[in-house]
Amino acid sequence: MKKHLKNINRTLLFGLLCVISLNLACKKQTDMNPIEADATSAVVESHDISKIEPLNWWVGFKNQTLQLLVHHQNISAFTPEISYQGISIEKVHKADSSNYLFIDLNISEVTKAGKFNIVFKQDGKNDLIQTYELKSRLKDSKDYIGFDSSDAVYLITPDRFANGNPENDIAKTLNETTIDRSDNYARHGGDIQGITNHLDYIEDLGFTAIWPCPLLTNDMQQSSYHGYAMTDFYEIDPRFGTLEEYKTLSSKMSEKGMKLIMDQVANHCGLEHWWMKDLPFKNWINHQENYESNSENWDNSKSITTNHRRTTNQDIYASKIDKENMSEGWFVSSMPDLNQRNPFMATYTIQNSIWWIETANLGGIRQDTYPYPDKNFMSHWAGAIMAEYPNFSIVGEEWTTNPLLIAYWQQGNPNKDGYNSNLKSPMDFAMQEKIASGLNRDEAWDSGLIEIYQALANDFIYVKPKDIMVFPDNHDMSRIFTQLKGDIPNTKMALSYLLMLPRIPQIYYGTEILMNDFDKPGDHGLVRSDFPGGWRGDKVNAFTGIGLSDKEKDMQTFLKTVLNYRKNSKAIHDGKTIHFAPDNNIYVLFRSLGDETVAHIMNKNDTTVELDLSKFKELGLEGKTVKNLISGEQFLWHNGMLTLKDRGSVILTTKL
Amino acid sequence: MKKHLKNINRTLLFGLLCVISLNLACKKQTDMNPIEADATSAVVESHDISKIEPLNWWVGFKNQTLQLLVHHQNISAFTPEISYQGISIEKVHKADSSNYLFIDLNISEVTKAGKFNIVFKQDGKNDLIQTYELKSRLKDSKDYIGFDSSDAVYLITPDRFANGNPENDIAKTLNETTIDRSDNYARHGGDIQGITNHLDYIEDLGFTAIWPCPLLTNDMQQSSYHGYAMTDFYEIDPRFGTLEEYKTLSSKMSEKGMKLIMDQVANHCGLEHWWMKDLPFKNWINHQENYESNSENWDNSKSITTNHRRTTNQDIYASKIDKENMSEGWFVSSMPDLNQRNPFMATYTIQNSIWWIETANLGGIRQDTYPYPDKNFMSHWAGAIMAEYPNFSIVGEEWTTNPLLIAYWQQGNPNKDGYNSNLKSPMDFAMQEKIASGLNRDEAWDSGLIEIYQALANDFIYVKPKDIMVFPDNHDMSRIFTQLKGDIPNTKMALSYLLMLPRIPQIYYGTEILMNDFDKPGDHGLVRSDFPGGWRGDKVNAFTGIGLSDKEKDMQTFLKTVLNYRKNSKAIHDGKTIHFAPDNNIYVLFRSLGDETVAHIMNKNDTTVELDLSKFKELGLEGKTVKNLISGEQFLWHNGMLTLKDRGSVILTTKL
Repeated sequence: MKKHLKNINRTLLFGLLCVISLNLACKKQTDMNPIEADATSAVVESHDISKIEPLNWWVGFKNQTLQLLVHHQNISAFTPEISYQGISIEKVHKADSSNYLFIDLNISEVTKAGKFNIVFKQDGKNDLIQTYELKSRLKDSKDYIGFDSSDAVYLITPDRFANGNPENDIAKTLNETTIDRSDNYARHGGDIQGITNHLDYIEDLGFTAIWPCPLLTNDMQQSSYHGYAMTDFYEIDPRFGTLEEYKTLSSKMSEKGMKLIMDQVANHCGLEHWWMKDLPFKNWINHQENYESNSENWDNSKSITTNHRRTTNQDIYASKIDKENMSEGWFVSSMPDLNQRNPFMATYTIQNSIWWIETANLGGIRQDTYPYPDKNFMSHWAGAIMAEYPNFSIVGEEWTTNPLLIAYWQQGNPNKDGYNSNLKSPMDFAMQEKIASGLNRDEAWDSGLIEIYQALANDFIYVKPKDIMVFPDNHDMSRIFTQLKGDIPNTKMALSYLLMLPRIPQIYYGTEILMNDFDKPGDHGLVRSDFPGGWRGDKVNAFTGIGLSDKEKDMQTFLKTVLNYRKNSKAIHDGKTIHFAPDNNIYVLFRSLGDETVAHIMNKNDTTVELDLSKFKELGLEGKTVKNLISGEQFLWHNGMLTLKDRGSVILTTKL
Repeated sequence: MKKHLKNINRTLLFGLLCVISLNLACKKQTDMNPIEADATSAVVESHDISKIEPLNWWVGFKNQTLQLLVHHQNISAFTPEISYQGISIEKVHKADSSNYLFIDLNISEVTKAGKFNIVFKQDGKNDLIQTYELKSRLKDSKDYIGFDSSDAVYLITPDRFANGNPENDIAKTLNETTIDRSDNYARHGGDIQGITNHLDYIEDLGFTAIWPCPLLTNDMQQSSYHGYAMTDFYEIDPRFGTLEEYKTLSSKMSEKGMKLIMDQVANHCGLEHWWMKDLPFKNWINHQENYESNSENWDNSKSITTNHRRTTNQDIYASKIDKENMSEGWFVSSMPDLNQRNPFMATYTIQNSIWWIETANLGGIRQDTYPYPDKNFMSHWAGAIMAEYPNFSIVGEEWTTNPLLIAYWQQGNPNKDGYNSNLKSPMDFAMQEKIASGLNRDEAWDSGLIEIYQALANDFIYVKPKDIMVFPDNHDMSRIFTQLKGDIPNTKMALSYLLMLPRIPQIYYGTEILMNDFDKPGDHGLVRSDFPGGWRGDKVNAFTGIGLSDKEKDMQTFLKTVLNYRKNSKAIHDGKTIHFAPDNNIYVLFRSLGDETVAHIMNKNDTTVELDLSKFKELGLEGKTVKNLISGEQFLWHNGMLTLKDRGSVILTTKL
């Protein structure tokens, strides 16, 4: 009932705003002749139109086309005109709803940055005038450098990391107005300012990139904290902060040489998205026919959720109905499935991504639920971005432990169906699973470390293994310390191993202090617990170390040491990989480039053992001095025995 | 001790034979001038040489070269001469042992079939003369048609199937002279005649090809019954029968349109192989340096067995030492690892395969332990065979459940390392595992039938899925009825499902009568139990049905019905495959070609359920009459509910 009343109020408000807009439009009628207007002269600004997206654009893109979505009461009865040097209206498209127009612009290479008015004309009516801005670009496309294997990515659930600005905890205009740190599924108040405040901490740990889970407005009734049910693709959720704060985060990161990765969602929006009240086309979302247009409620009895059978994207035997259900079904019933086969939706999504890259000077995009949208669109989307930004990076989430599917999604893979994803980085759920399993399971012929070794051996099928993102866990699964049953040596082995791999490593916030979900393993709310010290009055502060246990501090130091070594290790970023089949519960991996060789030893023996280094003679380390990265101890490598006293990882490097 | 004494006797015998040979050579000196000999005239036959291999050859091959291995006391001191129209000696190679010569012959296209003498000359010594035969070929190379997806293969462990000739049970000249049916690791007496006697049974069941495990001599001390430790690559084990019996089996199968598949082993021989007493080269076998030449015993303390880390064949990060250990290590310590990088060994192995194809008119080769020999040689070996016999088939055993590796080994797979195996058929251990697991495990989001569905979905990576061999079990693993815990509906589902797949199906003898290894699951000796009725006096006779339980008879009938349908089903051989993601514990797969559509329904529900056929409307079956293959019942397909009363498979076909 509450929801119903609220929506009636919002509908009234929309009508009211339209009336006001029309009145303003009357006032702003000018006698300027648009043809004679000087493109560079100051424009009398006017904002008659309810919504125009993208909010602005830029001059100087390779792609000179721009499609504006215009949403305004009965706008389809108007004809838009623009007078600005270098800009022409190529085509104006009406939608199924009379409240939309889609305007195709051409922005020639001579176009200068500036503001201009779009004048919407209708016989017998006053013009509507909307000022639109074309900005200058911050830097050249090629200078948008995406994350790569030289980076280490810190994944953050922003609501749970740090509350930098308690003033924005509640936004009364939005549906979910409560904040409750005792409820794992409520908002806790973390925000962009909280991340910005702790950039030094993240940098000191050795991370070079941050991937915050989505920060855009999720005006949902509940569980809005996670951010994946976006209700406005052009707005920072006010409970996370402002667009300016997001840009500040980005610029402060840039100063530190760090990359900001934006979490985007092309597959779906939140059910409370503004356009759900007035959908532009009959096929703007999938299964739209089941939705009562202009009604408040989706008829859930008719909703069709996806079958989640992601293999239908590749399967040469998949039935049509399974393919449709997979791609067109809704991810969950609160997230309408966007129809990217509608060309206006396709363009909308691509432009939205580019808008954020330019606006926030992004160092990468993480694309959610990669196999769920139309896969041809996804190739088009990634292709359009990479065509504009050749050095950019996108990582796509397909939750599969099947290397065949991971390989399929990577750009340039010779897929038999000819599909090219244009996606630089798939995610390595396969390796994640095997690291956990290999450490948890007893050593045997086909279990234990051999699982990890064989998982890495699968790299032969990947076009470019080092562009794949690997991780010990993420926001959607039990934390690695929990997966590894609270075993610290195993957790260290998992972390240091994946930081040695020819991969882009991603680590979830709090892993460094053994955050866990033992109380209810895998529970999303618990997995995404508050980072201690992120809130005023927290008794434990992981940023300062106050209140941390010795074990937590030790893990923090361990990870910091390895990450900071990794930061400048060419051998790890780009070196050759050689590994040796596990033997005697020990698995050794080497990375080497030039003079630098790093040996990573995983030892699962609980008692002292001797490792015969002569086995590794092909590395040519005989007589070289190596340093134990953690203890700092140095010794001469000789083709004899190395004593391993403790279970855990030993990292040796020739870089002293 | 017994072994030692025996070997002394054999050494004495060898010397004695040499003396006799030399004497005979003296007697057989002729005054014919070899230059003037008429190639087509009758040759005075002489057999002075201890061993010459191949035993004979043929005219009319594309490849005109032939390399003869000649083994004879001090033969390297002799120079061979041949006078036969079209034949020239291209090169004569000495080996490290003076008792070997390798003679390269060119057999030009004008060469006619016939016998000729090879005269070995040495100054001051009598000539040694060896008659050699070039035969006419039975048929053209292109007419050697290998097995394919239209076939169904019956796999037999010959010692355990049927004892057709009790006279050959014991061969007193061989090391293992006992026969004991109560000992699962002893010989039981089954033989080639036993298979030949029961061809009608096998044909009636619906099989079109037979793969007997190796039939060549295994003159080992023990466990010789399995056949994989060959001690002579050119001799049928006398306990299995004679070469003539093998050829008779083949010709009787040909008459029935059935294909004989020979099980070959390129990777190793048995430790008692004749050449182990006098190895031709220092690198004839791998790790030969650990072997005391001319001694009776391999020094087992120095033997190196393979690490079995088969992924080193593909792994781009594998260490050199692991690759070497994999390829050069011995499979087991009783099986010397042949060094195919020795070009004489390589040629020997290729010619041996061709010799058997021609001699026994083979319909295919099954190659053992495919990833263990040098992989470049294996490509060369298969390539050489396929170049000569373009329509032939080879199936290679790599025991891997990783589809990446299966794909890697199939001919034409676009491997990133450029490797092309030339192998038509890899084996589908991945599918085997998932069929068993999917049937055994409870239905859940990611377990049960979905495992089978997803295993088949992996087909998108295979160059040619229908050339892959699939099986419910084989001679090296627990029998499917045991794997499926004695569950008959599950066993039927496993069998009928794999017989529907775009694959070459292989079924192990006795599966049709629920043979099992419950008493000691996986025990090789038990897995390879005697087929009831194969021995005189057996109380149960599965050939006649006498003594079989109702359940066993029912399974026999079930398999017979499905196999015989499959035999003539173009839809199964070559049709389109469509399958539907499992739902409500039911998984449906269709095969269709032209007017024929076959639906295979796997139903894991224990209570009556309704299957909504409208889900399958894309198959266009509405209004067509379909027949239940097992019950014979016919009904009109309609897009409504189909009642499934019992757990198990339902097979429906439009072919009435």
